[in-house]
Amino acid sequence: MAYDPDNIFAKILRGEIPATSVYEDAQTLAFMDIMPRADGHVLVIPKTPCRNLLDASPDQLAAVMATAQRVARAVMQAFDAGGVTVQQFNETAGGQEVFHLHLHVLPRHDGVALRAPGQMGDMEVIAGHAERIRAALAG
Amino acid sequence: MAYDPDNIFAKILRGEIPATSVYEDAQTLAFMDIMPRADGHVLVIPKTPCRNLLDASPDQLAAVMATAQRVARAVMQAFDAGGVTVQQFNETAGGQEVFHLHLHVLPRHDGVALRAPGQMGDMEVIAGHAERIRAALAG
Repeated sequence: MAYDPDNIFAKILRGEIPATSVYEDAQTLAFMDIMPRADGHVLVIPKTPCRNLLDASPDQLAAVMATAQRVARAVMQAFDAGGVTVQQFNETAGGQEVFHLHLHVLPRHDGVALRAPGQMGDMEVIAGHAERIRAALAG
Repeated sequence: MAYDPDNIFAKILRGEIPATSVYEDAQTLAFMDIMPRADGHVLVIPKTPCRNLLDASPDQLAAVMATAQRVARAVMQAFDAGGVTVQQFNETAGGQEVFHLHLHVLPRHDGVALRAPGQMGDMEVIAGHAERIRAALAG
């Protein structure tokens, strides 16, 4: 399957759409999901184009996993989480909705289910969560 | 959190417990989940000890992702899947049950939900699925 350069994460990478970022390095960007299934739900993407796991390069995969680890450790601290769930969806049948490789990093607490997908979050609340994650990353 | 060398994946790696493997290289092992949430549900683990994403090394993460990609491409072909879902759970609150880093690779078809977790599969059926995955990996 081809890469569509007009997907919304490509637009975020080009600065055409805003995002609430929490971390960035040469190869990856991490930003808040605007439909958070848990407080502190972060998306990690490579800065270079690829559709998903099926067409990613080894470098892209290694880079997004390294950043996912960094973010996972930060959300554990920022939200006093008991664990982290990582999800990665490939193609529509696999649950993918935006066709630029991304990992979902979800802070978890015992007995608290993920919220249903597809519900817009409160942007002020999300901005506050991002601030906590940035502080944990800096600490 | 410490690594427990008596977790069941460590026992599989030492050959103390059988597993239906589909792929192996110097750094990783891929084998069938005995409680498959979809036909062709594969687990990918590093051969070296780590508890989960939170304590894994960059090499372990890169290696399991490379193998997950290889397996994802193979299950797409072996099951004529429309997509693949990858899940990775960290600590009990995050959904982790075996405390050796593992990625779930799940072939998906449009409109077919994952089966509920925790249900033992039929080992003969699973062996047949493993054969299809091995054939796709060899092809």
